[in-house]
Amino acid sequence: MRALRLHEIGGPQNLRVDDVAVPPAGDGEVLVRVRAAALNHRDVFITQGLYPRIRMPVTLGSDGAGEVAALGSVVSGLAEGDEVVIDPMLAWGDDPRVWNAATATILGMPRDGTFAQYAVVPVDNVHRKPPALSMEEAAAIPLAGLTAYRALFTRGALQPGETVLITGVGGGVQTFVLLFAKWAGAHAIVTSSSDEKLERARALGADLAINYAANADWPKLLRSTGPVDLIVDSSGGDTLRKALDVVRPGGRIVIYGGTVGEASIKMFPLFWKHVSILGTSMGSPQDFAAMLRLFDDGLRPAIDRVFALDDGVDAFERLAAAHQFGKVVLTIE
Amino acid sequence: MRALRLHEIGGPQNLRVDDVAVPPAGDGEVLVRVRAAALNHRDVFITQGLYPRIRMPVTLGSDGAGEVAALGSVVSGLAEGDEVVIDPMLAWGDDPRVWNAATATILGMPRDGTFAQYAVVPVDNVHRKPPALSMEEAAAIPLAGLTAYRALFTRGALQPGETVLITGVGGGVQTFVLLFAKWAGAHAIVTSSSDEKLERARALGADLAINYAANADWPKLLRSTGPVDLIVDSSGGDTLRKALDVVRPGGRIVIYGGTVGEASIKMFPLFWKHVSILGTSMGSPQDFAAMLRLFDDGLRPAIDRVFALDDGVDAFERLAAAHQFGKVVLTIE
Repeated sequence: MRALRLHEIGGPQNLRVDDVAVPPAGDGEVLVRVRAAALNHRDVFITQGLYPRIRMPVTLGSDGAGEVAALGSVVSGLAEGDEVVIDPMLAWGDDPRVWNAATATILGMPRDGTFAQYAVVPVDNVHRKPPALSMEEAAAIPLAGLTAYRALFTRGALQPGETVLITGVGGGVQTFVLLFAKWAGAHAIVTSSSDEKLERARALGADLAINYAANADWPKLLRSTGPVDLIVDSSGGDTLRKALDVVRPGGRIVIYGGTVGEASIKMFPLFWKHVSILGTSMGSPQDFAAMLRLFDDGLRPAIDRVFALDDGVDAFERLAAAHQFGKVVLTIE
Repeated sequence: MRALRLHEIGGPQNLRVDDVAVPPAGDGEVLVRVRAAALNHRDVFITQGLYPRIRMPVTLGSDGAGEVAALGSVVSGLAEGDEVVIDPMLAWGDDPRVWNAATATILGMPRDGTFAQYAVVPVDNVHRKPPALSMEEAAAIPLAGLTAYRALFTRGALQPGETVLITGVGGGVQTFVLLFAKWAGAHAIVTSSSDEKLERARALGADLAINYAANADWPKLLRSTGPVDLIVDSSGGDTLRKALDVVRPGGRIVIYGGTVGEASIKMFPLFWKHVSILGTSMGSPQDFAAMLRLFDDGLRPAIDRVFALDDGVDAFERLAAAHQFGKVVLTIE
């Protein structure tokens, strides 16, 4: 089979399509014929050596959709040919509140991932594809949709009618946060430094779109538009500091990443306003199942661009440059 | 009546016992003959001018216990002579999750407080004194007990068998946190820079007491003793940074103050460990009622020292020097 594999650290140019053996499905595992996959920043970071203990060569890829090609033993409830989508969060553990750090891993390093014609995954991680979605759409959902769902609902406890601020829209997760927030009947405010991304966010339903580069004092702008109940952020740094300033008393700030790095935060608004700062990462099996059900209801993920597996390096470079709005998808013939 | 009043900003020496008229109880209000009161840092901070819009002269004091002396109109459920304790959180509002910033105030500035023979308070803020407690014990509870209860249970969601880390034990709130944590069946770890306070905390039930001044790398010490589920802190700064380091995956950090000031925090442990940082301040009427019930169950507050009202300045200076362990109380004859 054909597989997009990383051979050495140093960036996406070290990825190569190799011809390798189709892996066997072991006990409790399913062999999926992958029809489409999607990229996450995690994949780019691995090519850049930003994760510990990178094993190579390795087939990257956390997100994938396709058909069941073969079932290992002790597997029931699925048949060959079933259209499925993969939950990439492996061995989360028994506690829905937090993963078991001793067992949890993400599909696509160390375990071979979805950027290949076939992938083997545990049966618990195989879910039926929402019928209304194409393979490309289904493949665009898993890791980003899971992270967004947990951030917004499980951790953020978003309620209909609330206002949610989505900082730095454009990446996969924040685009799902916007999609889910509008689905949930919330008022959505987005920020970006790109007018083009803000325009696309408006088209997806954003009620207010602010260019933070052109409006350095965007917190002031927000204070005049009404209370912000929930903020979803993955940057940290100055954004978290400003988030504490603008969030309403009793409001929540959910953090699922820290691209800008450390944040110097003031204590007074934190305790005086009874603010909750809630860290989150990926999501539980319960989160994944609940998230997937939203796509039976007319929702469609935002797709930035679709590449062929042979153009995988170009797909990685599109993501690395952060020019995308929505998910970067691979089709796998 | 005699009342300890602040006449100008500049510290506790500007407090003076004055002879003033007994205030009348208006509609929905209760006149309480105060028998004992207790100090909070808030009282000291007001004498130092650290609050906005300080009105003077003013009778300070948030905490008090005594007997009902007179009832205003539209008051039912209480009779003259009933022994009561006062909830100092006035007009919290309708949302148990957060106070209404437009209405909420704390008794004892701007409204005259409990450091007087009589105080007038809204009937909803008057609760029956737990029968087992003396007036001094009951007076020691309100503001610190309320803050501790909300921090530990309403916000911190402490469960029996969990481990709670109480940073900087000795002040009123942290002493109640320790008391309540042991009552709830938790394992309690305390820190202080004073061996004397650590010794007193052990006597109150602390399972592990760490001198953080003598053990600069106390987080390392904690990592070897087992997971910390919940941290209750009011300092911020480097302590919050260390708290993020030691709290278990899925753990909670409750912040009810920020004496050290701004904290530079790392994003990675926050999101990767699914940590919750939960701000809190004072407590709701529901918190107060639930907290008070704990004292029907054999609990007794820790009292540092009892002063006469005439020695009020000495009481303030004891608190200002932070030498106390537990509450500094005034008796009011």
